[in-house]
Amino acid sequence: MTLETQSTIMAFGGSQGVYRHLSAETKTDMSFAVFVPPHEEGVKLPVIWYLSGLTCTHANVMEKGEYRRACAELGLIFVAPDTSPRGDNVPDDDGYDFGQGAGFYVDAIRHPWAANFRMRSYIEQELPQIIAAHFPADMSRQGIMGHSMGGHGALTIGLRHPDTYKSISAFAPIVSPINCPWGQKALSGYIGDDPVLWREYDACALIADGARTGALLVDQGTADNFLADQLKPELLTAACRDAGIDLTLNMRDGYDHSYYFISTFMAEHLRWHAARL
Amino acid sequence: MTLETQSTIMAFGGSQGVYRHLSAETKTDMSFAVFVPPHEEGVKLPVIWYLSGLTCTHANVMEKGEYRRACAELGLIFVAPDTSPRGDNVPDDDGYDFGQGAGFYVDAIRHPWAANFRMRSYIEQELPQIIAAHFPADMSRQGIMGHSMGGHGALTIGLRHPDTYKSISAFAPIVSPINCPWGQKALSGYIGDDPVLWREYDACALIADGARTGALLVDQGTADNFLADQLKPELLTAACRDAGIDLTLNMRDGYDHSYYFISTFMAEHLRWHAARL
Repeated sequence: MTLETQSTIMAFGGSQGVYRHLSAETKTDMSFAVFVPPHEEGVKLPVIWYLSGLTCTHANVMEKGEYRRACAELGLIFVAPDTSPRGDNVPDDDGYDFGQGAGFYVDAIRHPWAANFRMRSYIEQELPQIIAAHFPADMSRQGIMGHSMGGHGALTIGLRHPDTYKSISAFAPIVSPINCPWGQKALSGYIGDDPVLWREYDACALIADGARTGALLVDQGTADNFLADQLKPELLTAACRDAGIDLTLNMRDGYDHSYYFISTFMAEHLRWHAARL
Repeated sequence: MTLETQSTIMAFGGSQGVYRHLSAETKTDMSFAVFVPPHEEGVKLPVIWYLSGLTCTHANVMEKGEYRRACAELGLIFVAPDTSPRGDNVPDDDGYDFGQGAGFYVDAIRHPWAANFRMRSYIEQELPQIIAAHFPADMSRQGIMGHSMGGHGALTIGLRHPDTYKSISAFAPIVSPINCPWGQKALSGYIGDDPVLWREYDACALIADGARTGALLVDQGTADNFLADQLKPELLTAACRDAGIDLTLNMRDGYDHSYYFISTFMAEHLRWHAARL
């Protein structure tokens, strides 16, 4: 578990770092970003996981997410992983929505993806051990959030592990990959054609199958180009209503799918998480 | 004065736009970014000019500057111009610190730069007319700020026009281009070898020669790689002391030259401007 520090830069009184390690899950070097807020020596801090969307690396939210002020005020560690394994020896696809940059937070079982595309186990198992070992993290207080494909990741990982992640939120998430073109392409490509195997990677199906969580927060822009065909928040509303899950879905008039939208509501989400951690 | 809207995106309740026009000064298409905060119909709002540093376009601060929340709260229009003319027909230099991306906010008089490199007149004369004509701007309430080369721009433009710019601030500015390698290269290249002609492009020389302003705010990181050789805030401290100008120079322990530094103190600067506009 050797961790290489690629950079650390002071911001908002804390440290914005980028780190790299050889992942046992993906068999590749993986980079991730961690912001550690100002804190007293010896204190352990709650952790927020931020899972990014299609085509992103750790860097998009690090540069454009505007999370550091709120994390510094609230005393939150903010972890931003990459969205897939990468490299010349890693399989890829011509589409922006499959292969490198599009890991969909699954453990692939189909060739040639299965060898490297293990983002589920990487986020759920491997990276938390590294965070616990190398940062002043209180792993009994973790929340998870994400955007778009990463919103899907946050919802599904959070719903599968309600004891680990005390709070789950998302910006413009893919709420049901089973029911949208992005998700169908990814799940058939990584997992295969058995629809039963898809259900653990679908927030709405997980809820229908019994997964529960205390509360969910979702923000969705009404001017988001992907709203009708890919994101379909109404499916999550229905699933939560049927299951009795307390979903707060904020439809944000005029906002799109970009980091201009995310940054606008980032501090609200972080305060919501902090109140639950 | 035709203005082409390249994009507008909602953020923090306002509109982040990118615009393009054919500049009479530079003889090129020029792009710039404007954030208009939420406001009541018919209200005119104060304007903050943000001048960027070497290699930057309007996009760097737009993506990484974290100014929108404070501008929305304070009711400030935020204008971010480009740092030079650009294009295949515009002269350039192999260095990152001269030519395209490095206009230094001067009106060049040397060949081949004089035809296009008129960033002083562009910022002082042409672009304000466009802002006044196309945005809900109260041009009697303008402040100016900038970073590094743009800090030099903000200081010199502000000092030459104290009636226009009621407030001047800078992040890690080049306070005296006469006395640093970046400035000497730029001024000799754009203006020539007559040191008298350099003085109107040097904040410390302008102050020595009689320029005055109400108050100056400067933030400077102590871990900035360019501090000792290029930025030299001690020269500004001495010039302001001799002239009786009220300079607040915040030396920020451990901060570097990046947007992680700028974004940390952006809201403080904007509040400082708003209190004076």
